[in-house]
Amino acid sequence: MSATRLNIGLIGLGRLGQVYARDLSSRIACTRLVAVADVDRTAVDATVQQFGVRGYTDLGGLLADQEVDAFVIVSPTHLHASQTAECAKTGKPVFCEKPPSISLDQALFMKQAVADSGIFFQLGFMRRFDAGYAAAKKRIAEGAIGEPVVFKATSRDPFRPSVEYANPKSSGGMIVDMGIHDFDLARWFMGEVRRVTAIGGVLAYPELGEVGDIDNAVVTLEFASGKLGVVDLTRNGIYGYDITTELLGTGGTLRIGYLRETPLMVMTKNAVTHDTVPYFMERFRDAYTVQLENFAENVLKGRPAPITVDDGVEALRVALAATRARETGQPVDVAAITA
Amino acid sequence: MSATRLNIGLIGLGRLGQVYARDLSSRIACTRLVAVADVDRTAVDATVQQFGVRGYTDLGGLLADQEVDAFVIVSPTHLHASQTAECAKTGKPVFCEKPPSISLDQALFMKQAVADSGIFFQLGFMRRFDAGYAAAKKRIAEGAIGEPVVFKATSRDPFRPSVEYANPKSSGGMIVDMGIHDFDLARWFMGEVRRVTAIGGVLAYPELGEVGDIDNAVVTLEFASGKLGVVDLTRNGIYGYDITTELLGTGGTLRIGYLRETPLMVMTKNAVTHDTVPYFMERFRDAYTVQLENFAENVLKGRPAPITVDDGVEALRVALAATRARETGQPVDVAAITA
Amino acid sequence: MSATRLNIGLIGLGRLGQVYARDLSSRIACTRLVAVADVDRTAVDATVQQFGVRGYTDLGGLLADQEVDAFVIVSPTHLHASQTAECAKTGKPVFCEKPPSISLDQALFMKQAVADSGIFFQLGFMRRFDAGYAAAKKRIAEGAIGEPVVFKATSRDPFRPSVEYANPKSSGGMIVDMGIHDFDLARWFMGEVRRVTAIGGVLAYPELGEVGDIDNAVVTLEFASGKLGVVDLTRNGIYGYDITTELLGTGGTLRIGYLRETPLMVMTKNAVTHDTVPYFMERFRDAYTVQLENFAENVLKGRPAPITVDDGVEALRVALAATRARETGQPVDVAAITA
Amino acid sequence: MSATRLNIGLIGLGRLGQVYARDLSSRIACTRLVAVADVDRTAVDATVQQFGVRGYTDLGGLLADQEVDAFVIVSPTHLHASQTAECAKTGKPVFCEKPPSISLDQALFMKQAVADSGIFFQLGFMRRFDAGYAAAKKRIAEGAIGEPVVFKATSRDPFRPSVEYANPKSSGGMIVDMGIHDFDLARWFMGEVRRVTAIGGVLAYPELGEVGDIDNAVVTLEFASGKLGVVDLTRNGIYGYDITTELLGTGGTLRIGYLRETPLMVMTKNAVTHDTVPYFMERFRDAYTVQLENFAENVLKGRPAPITVDDGVEALRVALAATRARETGQPVDVAAITA
Repeated sequence: MSATRLNIGLIGLGRLGQVYARDLSSRIACTRLVAVADVDRTAVDATVQQFGVRGYTDLGGLLADQEVDAFVIVSPTHLHASQTAECAKTGKPVFCEKPPSISLDQALFMKQAVADSGIFFQLGFMRRFDAGYAAAKKRIAEGAIGEPVVFKATSRDPFRPSVEYANPKSSGGMIVDMGIHDFDLARWFMGEVRRVTAIGGVLAYPELGEVGDIDNAVVTLEFASGKLGVVDLTRNGIYGYDITTELLGTGGTLRIGYLRETPLMVMTKNAVTHDTVPYFMERFRDAYTVQLENFAENVLKGRPAPITVDDGVEALRVALAATRARETGQPVDVAAITA
Repeated sequence: MSATRLNIGLIGLGRLGQVYARDLSSRIACTRLVAVADVDRTAVDATVQQFGVRGYTDLGGLLADQEVDAFVIVSPTHLHASQTAECAKTGKPVFCEKPPSISLDQALFMKQAVADSGIFFQLGFMRRFDAGYAAAKKRIAEGAIGEPVVFKATSRDPFRPSVEYANPKSSGGMIVDMGIHDFDLARWFMGEVRRVTAIGGVLAYPELGEVGDIDNAVVTLEFASGKLGVVDLTRNGIYGYDITTELLGTGGTLRIGYLRETPLMVMTKNAVTHDTVPYFMERFRDAYTVQLENFAENVLKGRPAPITVDDGVEALRVALAATRARETGQPVDVAAITA
Repeated sequence: MSATRLNIGLIGLGRLGQVYARDLSSRIACTRLVAVADVDRTAVDATVQQFGVRGYTDLGGLLADQEVDAFVIVSPTHLHASQTAECAKTGKPVFCEKPPSISLDQALFMKQAVADSGIFFQLGFMRRFDAGYAAAKKRIAEGAIGEPVVFKATSRDPFRPSVEYANPKSSGGMIVDMGIHDFDLARWFMGEVRRVTAIGGVLAYPELGEVGDIDNAVVTLEFASGKLGVVDLTRNGIYGYDITTELLGTGGTLRIGYLRETPLMVMTKNAVTHDTVPYFMERFRDAYTVQLENFAENVLKGRPAPITVDDGVEALRVALAATRARETGQPVDVAAITA
Repeated sequence: MSATRLNIGLIGLGRLGQVYARDLSSRIACTRLVAVADVDRTAVDATVQQFGVRGYTDLGGLLADQEVDAFVIVSPTHLHASQTAECAKTGKPVFCEKPPSISLDQALFMKQAVADSGIFFQLGFMRRFDAGYAAAKKRIAEGAIGEPVVFKATSRDPFRPSVEYANPKSSGGMIVDMGIHDFDLARWFMGEVRRVTAIGGVLAYPELGEVGDIDNAVVTLEFASGKLGVVDLTRNGIYGYDITTELLGTGGTLRIGYLRETPLMVMTKNAVTHDTVPYFMERFRDAYTVQLENFAENVLKGRPAPITVDDGVEALRVALAATRARETGQPVDVAAITA
């Protein structure tokens, strides 16, 4: 590790992994991609050729690579905990995509592994690095809206996921899958959540119900401070990808989110029309890059991680509490979720 | 009653009563204000002088006025039920502002009085007559968003009411006072509500807590159909009066509401600013007029009332269920609210 | 004339005249409509019946009506000058709709008649009373944008006028007919115009060309102060009625105008759509009322007229200069327009 | 030159040059940066180190570099023509930033050099590759607004350039410097310009007047087809970088442009505020990348250049005509500009 550039070993070459490969190799000045690992040999070979890096189809090879200064894990969620634990044994810094796991046990295992090893660990919640969310955080600190007292978040997907993806056994169910970002923001802006209620159902896509998932939900949050929150989630956004968050304060309100993608407005008889944000990569492309850059800078400069494994564990705990609340129709204390 | 113009006796000369006096006398072609009643002699005298009508300081005088074709009641809420019952005895048509009462018993009494008398009765929920809400209803009927499956409403006041006004003994508490409009819209767009949860608290104005009220709440709705809803209410809108409603459908979404009052944008260094809607009279001025005109036309043309006393009773029942849910921290079946 | 209410004699019962009749009789507290005059007996009779006023089919009758305190002229433009001159002989205050005339000679005749009689005279340019334009004027005075240096205005009609209406012999041609409001705003915000250029043509509606009119034009303005302006005019707005004005200052910019009529947004696959402002009555309804109220208050309180006959003469002179510039393809000094 | 990747020699390492270096080396899959040239040794060394390429402080070295497949010229404008001519001698493809020159003679020299050599040449006008402008072009072709008949463009800089930069001897003056993009768009959307008028002056920054430049201008365009256009330019945008273009058609209107940069809205007492687009790099960052990628793909796939040297020559001719029109106060035929 030089003082100015961090050599990265990237784990996982799915869609986001390929974006990260490009970011790490060229868009971020303080990183250098030196090696990648994935079980898919074709993906490894393509990346090796494109970026001139070393490639491994087993994690062990990458773990042993002496040139690697730090690991970035962007593999499927069910591998996050075990791979983090493996990487942690090398003592090198690790960045891992959210969530730690869809199982609290696994997330706690991951937390323990990080703690035992004493490594630098940073979890990915890219929204915190979006220009809008970052500015909101700053404006609140400056007092722009007084004390924030109500947190309100909307997450809408423009289409349903595949039935395979949606299966709660792998996705954790919609409230975990979609809501985890909102629960992280809730904690980031407002503090710990004490109690949740949730309603939800299969209203648009019956096929999701057949694998045990839902397509719409509303979750209410009571924070430990007595403040309030509400998160609504839908798979039938239809008009586009809409991530909107509001912070109501005693002196004003901040709203983060937009609906318009290109600079074009089409004005025809009696109507003005514009297009919408297609999906998460269009909305949060820059946030992903800024997030990785932040990780590298934190490592290089010895700064603490802004998002810890605990942030992942606690956001997951809220999501699991909301899932249980939805299933039982009863309020659930977040602290009651212990496994 | 001529075939084309309805002679109105107006009951109540508070702020909204004075607006109605002007609407009935001049803005609406098919009505004529002929008499007014209020216990406040000064208000009566001023109205008599301004509009050249007869004035009464007791309801009995107005009830006996032979020129009056129909009554419009816009008195304080606690008088709605008894005054409706009195008017009903004359057999003449009655329009009464929402809500029927803040007490379900009183509302049911009012319902019975209307039923017993057989009069034409129309309840006021002016939002239904707003151009935006009316257009939304029409667009849904045309299939613009497929089947609406999630109802989402926000009501924000730009400042807190007086402590006296907020006292739940007279206002019914914030969930009733602010939410009744949203619950009516919920029923209008989505059908009956089966079950509610609610959270709320005193987060901005401690003085409201001293009289037993709250200043923020979130209410979730499960409709009998299995569809979902959420209503959030706040007294600390601060930036303006913000009434926004969304209908998420299987094929699209409708959003009703706006944040901009005048056509002016002020663009200064790095910022674009516009003003906001001050309060309900600026937002719903035209809706009030259209509503009264609709009442008169329904009477003159023998059409049924689009909003009945039942609509008031059932919206109130949802509001009372949500109030109880907030107080107990438990979900409440709407049908369980019987008094 | 009482100290608090002005008895109005209304001249002209066309579309706008009927709006004014209602405003004067009921929407404005300090006016009372007492008599009307129009050559169309049917219109007179209907108004007499609706508002309980006296009606005349000849101007002479109205001029002799002793109860009339002041005249409001909203007849066809070619009658403005002569009727103002007739009214002026009574010595009573006169409000006259813009423009004074489409002929500079006639406008100067009207100016002379007003001057000779010494009456209170106020010309109608309703945009100045629109909430947006009024707020803009105030914000500039407060220094919100520093010194305004560029004036930029757009006027778009949603459809073409009838060919009969458009005939330049009666309308003055598009630059006069549509632009006169923008030229008045230009003078109001920026001062006198020294020189103009103009381009224009028949681009959308060939039938307008057949009567000698055009359907699109761009006019540049050089003010006496050296400041700059540009006005673009179109008959093929298609998407709605769009009146937008910008004032660029040394410290910021003000934009007045909007494109959205109702509070409804329709969000369907990949698109967000809202409706637009239909036409001038929807856009400037309130401004018309405020303007008449302002006239009455000025008379009752002895305040000077904010818009004089000179404002009409000079806006017309700019419009005629621009028309000549368009016809000749050469810049025209406004001062060169003397007849 | 492989079939899939173009080896680029980059000429010019100023601000935009450095952006291009990164784009060519990593953001664009089908290019590879292999060498750079600039007279500034420090800039060359830094780029060599960062991207692992060869560096030259004289153009001759780069011209002789055998690995280079194509040149990208992003040097100061006064070097465009001569450097293009030098590169053309190698017979290799050339991409050159706009404008060809600020002198028509030089631009014509460049045109001749390209023609004589027969090389593939593509000029840079990045707006054509912006998502909004590209979508507008497509929508017009699809008939979304009928026949476009009026072109309207606004370009506003958020602050004035340095006095040195603004000097017309090097910049060509504001109408050339800022307007050239708008004149290119005018030609792209509407066809050739026949005649222009222009007004302008020093209204905000007297210091610009001292070197002979202006800070505000309005240019009208008459197209050869009889269609109309207007372009307004200002250095005192103040509130942000605002590039807005409208195409008015016989069946609707397209507006390209936006004012909002981040997804954040700040809502405080009676006001809603959002930030604005800072400057051209924020607004057109992606367009620059897409443009270079387009160049490389055209070369690799043997497609013709979408923007030719003629496009630069003709846009410049319109800009020079408008500059002369502004100086003389008289309309100028574009064809009259021959040197």
